[in-house]
Amino acid sequence: MRAVVLDNHGLRLDTDYPSPQAAPGEVLIRVLRAGICETDLQLIAGYMAFRGVLGHEFVGVAESGRYRGQRVVGEINCSCRQCEYCQAGLGRHCPNRSVLGILNHDGAFADLIAVPEANLHLVPESLSDETAVFNEPLAAAFEIPEQLDLSGYRRAVVLGDGRLGNLCAQVIARSGCDLTVIGKHRAKLALLERLGIATELLGNVEPRREADLVVDCTGSPTGLETALGLVRPRGTIVMKTTVAAEHASSLAPLVIDEITLVGSRCGPFDKALAALAAGDIDVQPLVSGTYALDDALEALHRAQAGSVLKLQLVVRQ
Amino acid sequence: MRAVVLDNHGLRLDTDYPSPQAAPGEVLIRVLRAGICETDLQLIAGYMAFRGVLGHEFVGVAESGRYRGQRVVGEINCSCRQCEYCQAGLGRHCPNRSVLGILNHDGAFADLIAVPEANLHLVPESLSDETAVFNEPLAAAFEIPEQLDLSGYRRAVVLGDGRLGNLCAQVIARSGCDLTVIGKHRAKLALLERLGIATELLGNVEPRREADLVVDCTGSPTGLETALGLVRPRGTIVMKTTVAAEHASSLAPLVIDEITLVGSRCGPFDKALAALAAGDIDVQPLVSGTYALDDALEALHRAQAGSVLKLQLVVRQ
Repeated sequence: MRAVVLDNHGLRLDTDYPSPQAAPGEVLIRVLRAGICETDLQLIAGYMAFRGVLGHEFVGVAESGRYRGQRVVGEINCSCRQCEYCQAGLGRHCPNRSVLGILNHDGAFADLIAVPEANLHLVPESLSDETAVFNEPLAAAFEIPEQLDLSGYRRAVVLGDGRLGNLCAQVIARSGCDLTVIGKHRAKLALLERLGIATELLGNVEPRREADLVVDCTGSPTGLETALGLVRPRGTIVMKTTVAAEHASSLAPLVIDEITLVGSRCGPFDKALAALAAGDIDVQPLVSGTYALDDALEALHRAQAGSVLKLQLVVRQ
Repeated sequence: MRAVVLDNHGLRLDTDYPSPQAAPGEVLIRVLRAGICETDLQLIAGYMAFRGVLGHEFVGVAESGRYRGQRVVGEINCSCRQCEYCQAGLGRHCPNRSVLGILNHDGAFADLIAVPEANLHLVPESLSDETAVFNEPLAAAFEIPEQLDLSGYRRAVVLGDGRLGNLCAQVIARSGCDLTVIGKHRAKLALLERLGIATELLGNVEPRREADLVVDCTGSPTGLETALGLVRPRGTIVMKTTVAAEHASSLAPLVIDEITLVGSRCGPFDKALAALAAGDIDVQPLVSGTYALDDALEALHRAQAGSVLKLQLVVRQ
């Protein structure tokens, strides 16, 4: 089969990669469409030392199992279902887990991917493939209200106007708080303004320490320092940014101002699907381009440009 | 009067420093005894660019006001009592505040210190001067149960066997959780063992990611990285360490494991005094030495030695 493979020789499109075998409990999914994420770019840059097929945002058709012949999306953490974390309902933190396209498990930039059947969610008929691919990153945005009661925050800032920043902003805006997105790109900020969300250019922002909540979606090791300049004493910063680079900043302000910093990763697929089905989240304007799988390397190259939002790979029409 | 002064020429004992004037709402305190804190050493090293009289842990006798002639301890944050934070009961975060011996306010390594009367707490007769001086750092330890419900944490680790680590450990041990203090100094760890608190030498510790709560009292920029190696996914790290140095570590593990990091600074004087009066906290073994104020520079030099716990300055017998 075709697959976008990252190995010791670098990144390549392999047209004769061995098809995955479904392990016990797994189902093969014929991929329809996949999305390129910042994490894919980080993996290519060396993060997690991943080797294998890239890709973890996808929609496809189940080849077997209870969703056979139907469109599904899949949670990316493949947990052991037996350890202390799995028993406590925290399978996304299972220490024995593999992660689709990220850790010890081939991903979705391929004709086929093997996914635990327990990870699958049926896609409502009303959702296009283009929209359904957004479910994985949108679920990550919905992790924020899983961790925090957003009704307790009056003034919120999302740092970063990229793919994840946009989705987090749309999720947080639903809570009715006074939200501002701060970013570097006028065109990306304009998309948010069209949704009625206030925005500011990063270059115009002075440290003002008045936000009750700051969500760092910058993807940059400097995001935390910017967040510390905007959050009020006793406020909360949510970190969505995973970068391999070191944060080189003093954390003394975090102690002096008694800030709470909350790491936040993958989230609930069911809540994201429900919001997409209800039309509550506007993802279509985020698509900056669509490529055939055969042109995946070109797409991954273009995804590194600052002007780009979401690029998708069409694997099968 | 005598005062330990830090200015652009460095640190000196001034025997003819001008006595403080009590501003409206302030009371002069004749200092009996003061404690040397890690923050004093940081200030001497350049932290906060402080200029003035050092010292913020003290017991003294009020010269006027409702505690006139009685022994008092004083909270260190001098807040405006008018701003949004003060109105919300968060005067310790007042953006207009000065801080005794730390920020725009002369401190307690002197014959006299001016303190807002509202900051004063009467010292119970039963407490010695030596014990009462511990109230300020002990209050900082009691800030942890102000911020977190400790009954929710089963396995706790305190990183650091110094002055603050010891006090935080004694406070956390009261919650009944399974507590281990990890430090570098056998003699300091032995003090904790005598209180029935389990300890480990840092050199023997492997990352094990199983603690529900880790409290960083290392005073070192590497403390956070050690804490991230010990806390479980979805666990909590409390940062008590304020250092001017930069933390150079990737925060990706914080995001991946969805760790909550809570900055923690000054705490409730009343709860600390009550615990000292009840004999619940054992501070006497922490005193490594006592110096006359006239020998303060020698004491501040000795306080930098790794083997020392608390040094106190006797200002007036």
